[in-house]
Amino acid sequence: MTTTTRIVLAQRPHGEPTDDDLVEEQATLSDPEPGQALLQTLYLSLDPYMRGRMSDAKSYAEPVAVGDPMVGGTVSRVIDCPGGEFAAGDIVLGYGGWQTYSLEAVSYLRRLDPDAAPVSTALGVLGMPGFTAYAGLREIGRPEPGETVAVAAATGPVGSAVGQIAKAWGARTVGIAGGEKKVAHLRELGFDEAIDHRADDFADRLAAATPDGIDVYFENVGGKVFEAVLPRMNTYGRIPVCGLVSGYNSTSLPEGPDRSGLLLGAILTSSLTLRGFIQTEFVDTVMDDFVRDMTAWVAHGTVQYTEDVVDGFENVRDAFRGLLVGKNFGKLVVKVAD
Amino acid sequence: MTTTTRIVLAQRPHGEPTDDDLVEEQATLSDPEPGQALLQTLYLSLDPYMRGRMSDAKSYAEPVAVGDPMVGGTVSRVIDCPGGEFAAGDIVLGYGGWQTYSLEAVSYLRRLDPDAAPVSTALGVLGMPGFTAYAGLREIGRPEPGETVAVAAATGPVGSAVGQIAKAWGARTVGIAGGEKKVAHLRELGFDEAIDHRADDFADRLAAATPDGIDVYFENVGGKVFEAVLPRMNTYGRIPVCGLVSGYNSTSLPEGPDRSGLLLGAILTSSLTLRGFIQTEFVDTVMDDFVRDMTAWVAHGTVQYTEDVVDGFENVRDAFRGLLVGKNFGKLVVKVAD
Repeated sequence: MTTTTRIVLAQRPHGEPTDDDLVEEQATLSDPEPGQALLQTLYLSLDPYMRGRMSDAKSYAEPVAVGDPMVGGTVSRVIDCPGGEFAAGDIVLGYGGWQTYSLEAVSYLRRLDPDAAPVSTALGVLGMPGFTAYAGLREIGRPEPGETVAVAAATGPVGSAVGQIAKAWGARTVGIAGGEKKVAHLRELGFDEAIDHRADDFADRLAAATPDGIDVYFENVGGKVFEAVLPRMNTYGRIPVCGLVSGYNSTSLPEGPDRSGLLLGAILTSSLTLRGFIQTEFVDTVMDDFVRDMTAWVAHGTVQYTEDVVDGFENVRDAFRGLLVGKNFGKLVVKVAD
Repeated sequence: MTTTTRIVLAQRPHGEPTDDDLVEEQATLSDPEPGQALLQTLYLSLDPYMRGRMSDAKSYAEPVAVGDPMVGGTVSRVIDCPGGEFAAGDIVLGYGGWQTYSLEAVSYLRRLDPDAAPVSTALGVLGMPGFTAYAGLREIGRPEPGETVAVAAATGPVGSAVGQIAKAWGARTVGIAGGEKKVAHLRELGFDEAIDHRADDFADRLAAATPDGIDVYFENVGGKVFEAVLPRMNTYGRIPVCGLVSGYNSTSLPEGPDRSGLLLGAILTSSLTLRGFIQTEFVDTVMDDFVRDMTAWVAHGTVQYTEDVVDGFENVRDAFRGLLVGKNFGKLVVKVAD
């Protein structure tokens, strides 16, 4: 019997999730049976998709049930694994959720090598966000050398990987982010152009930065950035759509005019491809190549990554709210234990 | 020297094109030189895309210049062809525009066999509209046997071909049209389901007609039909976008709320593909298969077609205005001469 501190979805949030929606509680975990492992959480990943799991609107995954702990990727230390698949002390990647200890099926766990890379990168550049970037670019965006690839939230874990992978494949890269500090970081990462979407003349800057238009726009934000990007898209442009964080807290449709016809019109007149995806679709076909390429790129410094490590499980909810409004800088993880 | 009666774009229309925008005039054609042919127009095709050519907004083709005759596909009789590529009396498919006689480069002309099919079908089921349906379905929609294919403006020349081709390929077909007469015609054409978008409970009827959702929606209308279709789309659904006739006369964006985020959200959560296209993209790769398949289907009655023949060049403008609001029934052509 182990006591875990966890955060449950007490009720579905209306807008920004409050501490009444996400309630911290103590719970008791039973001892692991064969096929299970008891784990101590070291790092919890916080990602925008989790906001979707709190709602019961139609989505690509089942919502978290009211009363259940919030889900999430975790890097954990094995405490007890009666079947012997893992040794006590092994570090594993799992899906333990927002809690300090978890009981998981061993089939969902993957052993990590702490000597190969910092174990927290399994939640970021070498994990789901990095894979999202790689799979979306390779399978949908398909940038040719010399083409222009634009991405928003470009200092985020997906966006920064998108830009650096596209650059490694020979594309011209345009990063969009909010604030001068993030823009400066994009330049350090090697983006060919870096633009602040908070600037009053953002659309003009974007036009100046894309003299040959945009061939691939990796969409993970939505909203006003997308509006400015759309007229810059070249004929036969591709838009992988993997997230719309700007609208995740919305409780009603934005005010008019209705721009959906404008969007369809752009799709028609420029023969654009928009394709929504969730990375799980490509795990079977693309994961092996991703692990091979990304491990090498990270080792050689071709792809750099930034982590925003928040210390302490008690800060999970504040960190998540900050994520939804862009306060994090790099991949957001909560360090839960040493 | 030949006198032609023609309609020129005197000024760009604001909303529905008026007789001040589209002005009828007489003009004199010079005698054909080698490499040219003087043609008498027999049939003029009227198509929704022509509204786009009257505007100077960014599109997939250059707009018609103010003062120039309106463009359009034509079936014509050869009057004089000094280079000898065609004989006087030959019937040819060309792009003579809105006029009673035209002078065209012979390289743009294709001889038609009046014994094989009525020559006007070269403007419809065996021409550009039929090819648009075939190419968009085969290259983008890619329906599998048993999947559900929906199309709006389903009695139109593109929509009716979409439904019948999809049926020939084993899909379940749902046709959407305006008014009971058109809906009844869809049933005659063999659509599995036929729905009137003017019905107050259109969205409910669409849901009832698509118990397994929609896998392919061939988008050639836009507006409220699309809004009702979107929530019915299945995961990995495909939406070829070849026209948006509902908005062609719009002079401003529709009132809010802004539904563009809703559209992007649906693309994301259902992993949809939206792909704009114009049929010319596929001429090199798909046209031969189209001619082979469609000629056989028409000969065997697998694909039926309906023509709405308006008699007399003097009725061109009224017929075109009617087309933009759905007054035609089947492929709209103007019979200009016998």
